Amino acid sequence: MKSSDGKMPNGFLFAALEAAIKKPGRKDLALIFSEREALLAGMFTSNRIKAAPVKLDMKRIKTGKGQAVIVNSGNANACTGKQGMMDASEMANLVAATLGLKKNKVYVCSTGVIGKPLPMDRLRQVIPGLVRRLGTASIQDVAAAIMTTDTFPKVVSKRIRIAGKTVTIAGVCKGAGMISPHMATMLCFILTDMSITWSALHAALVCAVRSSFNRITVDGDMSTNDTVIIMANGMAGNDVADEDSVYFQKFSSALSAITAELSRMIARDGEGATKLVEIEVKNAKNQEDAERAGFTIANSLLVKTALYGNDANWGRIMAALGYSGITLHEDKIDMYINRVKLVRRGLATGKESEATAALKEKEIKITVDLRLGNSSAKVLTCDLTEDYVRINAEYRT
Amino acid sequence: MKSSDGKMPNGFLFAALEAAIKKPGRKDLALIFSEREALLAGMFTSNRIKAAPVKLDMKRIKTGKGQAVIVNSGNANACTGKQGMMDASEMANLVAATLGLKKNKVYVCSTGVIGKPLPMDRLRQVIPGLVRRLGTASIQDVAAAIMTTDTFPKVVSKRIRIAGKTVTIAGVCKGAGMISPHMATMLCFILTDMSITWSALHAALVCAVRSSFNRITVDGDMSTNDTVIIMANGMAGNDVADEDSVYFQKFSSALSAITAELSRMIARDGEGATKLVEIEVKNAKNQEDAERAGFTIANSLLVKTALYGNDANWGRIMAALGYSGITLHEDKIDMYINRVKLVRRGLATGKESEATAALKEKEIKITVDLRLGNSSAKVLTCDLTEDYVRINAEYRT
Repeated sequence: MKSSDGKMPNGFLFAALEAAIKKPGRKDLALIFSEREALLAGMFTSNRIKAAPVKLDMKRIKTGKGQAVIVNSGNANACTGKQGMMDASEMANLVAATLGLKKNKVYVCSTGVIGKPLPMDRLRQVIPGLVRRLGTASIQDVAAAIMTTDTFPKVVSKRIRIAGKTVTIAGVCKGAGMISPHMATMLCFILTDMSITWSALHAALVCAVRSSFNRITVDGDMSTNDTVIIMANGMAGNDVADEDSVYFQKFSSALSAITAELSRMIARDGEGATKLVEIEVKNAKNQEDAERAGFTIANSLLVKTALYGNDANWGRIMAALGYSGITLHEDKIDMYINRVKLVRRGLATGKESEATAALKEKEIKITVDLRLGNSSAKVLTCDLTEDYVRINAEYRT
Repeated sequence: MKSSDGKMPNGFLFAALEAAIKKPGRKDLALIFSEREALLAGMFTSNRIKAAPVKLDMKRIKTGKGQAVIVNSGNANACTGKQGMMDASEMANLVAATLGLKKNKVYVCSTGVIGKPLPMDRLRQVIPGLVRRLGTASIQDVAAAIMTTDTFPKVVSKRIRIAGKTVTIAGVCKGAGMISPHMATMLCFILTDMSITWSALHAALVCAVRSSFNRITVDGDMSTNDTVIIMANGMAGNDVADEDSVYFQKFSSALSAITAELSRMIARDGEGATKLVEIEVKNAKNQEDAERAGFTIANSLLVKTALYGNDANWGRIMAALGYSGITLHEDKIDMYINRVKLVRRGLATGKESEATAALKEKEIKITVDLRLGNSSAKVLTCDLTEDYVRINAEYRT
């Protein structure tokens, strides 16, 4: 398995332009197109308030197929009522009409401000031109066009060999804030030329998301628009793989590696973040406890500000463990920051100055060993800085 | 019922001094003493990691009686193991010995940094002197000595007439950050000369805390040290009141008013806060939903930063409602900021500029009307600012 950002799966074309939805000077509309109809699977926000495009896509995805995805940034088309549903459909229809596709082969994603109608006049004007530009943009241009508060575009691709054929998987995503378990304010599109059954494709996606996007949290907020879509157009020419194929594991691993890398990029790009932080909770009584403890620590503002301040304030981690509601014995808990053992059996080891030095690194690992059971969980997050506040206080103003 | 900060209940004496637990120049040790043994009731943190003094007090409070409380700031005596338990006992014992009281009549509270042993050498030296100074300090001095990141001391007192006698209730508390449901990193001491049964005293305290301290949240973090203690020494000379007395309701209301005022002070003093924010969720399907929605909105960083930025970004409130997990119908929701109706039946009313103007006030009320049932809940919080981050990144450094 080779990582290779330049390599793209066969048969996918891109276009991106500035539709003046965001502030001037930034691309905000992108189109992803597969030359051949693709199998398509997806996962969507579990927020009970879902954006119009999410509702549309959730219906269309029941067909398991698709050929194009149109994405805008700058406006989430959420909390927009019936008008929002009509606008999402019209965006898809305009693409379908220009490409000569059936309407339900086109998916729509939106990200940005909630509660404002889309500027449809403008979109009607530019979508035909966007379609005509297919093939003139790279996946990096798509990544740039879907950014909101992201500070860098996020693309990962990998190649694997499947029965003598080269299969490529490429993922592009956006996400920097409002990131929480059960996906982020994130959109992610994964494209592959793998030939695979729909059920195998779907299973591989679910596994990959569970251990990546569902394990990042920047601020505990969960969006109305989160979407992960995977398209597999089969153009690598390999024999169709199903879940029992010897090649399924290879594909699934590569896909998980891609989503893991993308989710690290999201956590690293957490709004205002200066540090990528991995929390590992080990030897919890059960899986639910391990995850809950991990997320409680990762979402604690006091922990996140201490990390920002290079303060090895393990008391705040203990307090978060205590209010997480998990089963624990205070006098069994060990805790590490990177390789420095800060707490032994619930008590300070006196190594705070070493831990403080460790905190100055850009990537921090906090390990909590509950010494109770066999379950563990990892959660990715970032520190909390004045810039997070500034970005989110000024987002629309 | 009259509010009167200067009036103190009969028979309570105070002392405060600088024991060099905090940075130099600030008082950090206080003693509250009742001339007559008092009935004593209390409520403590529900954090599973409890500080040593909390464990000690939780045992002693089973007697329902007490005569003195010693409080230090600067060190929480939490996560300090057996040594911590011995230190908490010794603090109490030193007070008891100097006053000639039984040990279990003295309660101990600590607040500050977790995981560091108390400077017992220093405490042994100063506690006898602290006891000798009883009567030289005011309740305001106690309030100042127990502050950590608080920016102002918090004292409220009220007088009521009970069967021809004047009864006074005075409350003093500290708390500014790490404030969450089920109490804050807060210590609160309520003193009254009311003559009342223990069970009536306890019931009145539980009611008062439920609708006040348990309804504030600054950052969602919950402390290891939260304690509310009420002492009633009976020195007002009224006939003993029980729960069925006509005077119980009067006492209970006055007590609830005191804790409500103190909790507003805490929310207003939220670390770095510029605004006091009340979230009211109305017409929820049930009480649990109303409270959960209120706390989810109150703890959303995106909502709190928007409030700071004077941005009437109701989409973030909708998103928080959506991920709170409560039952809702998007197209039934109405939303107000102060008196401005921002959302009607799930859609923008177009009054964002009026709402933005309303947000410039120092006290904000957000009302969410779910139009589903009859339950409602109010939660107090504050906005999130760069100063919150600065205060908590630099707390120990």
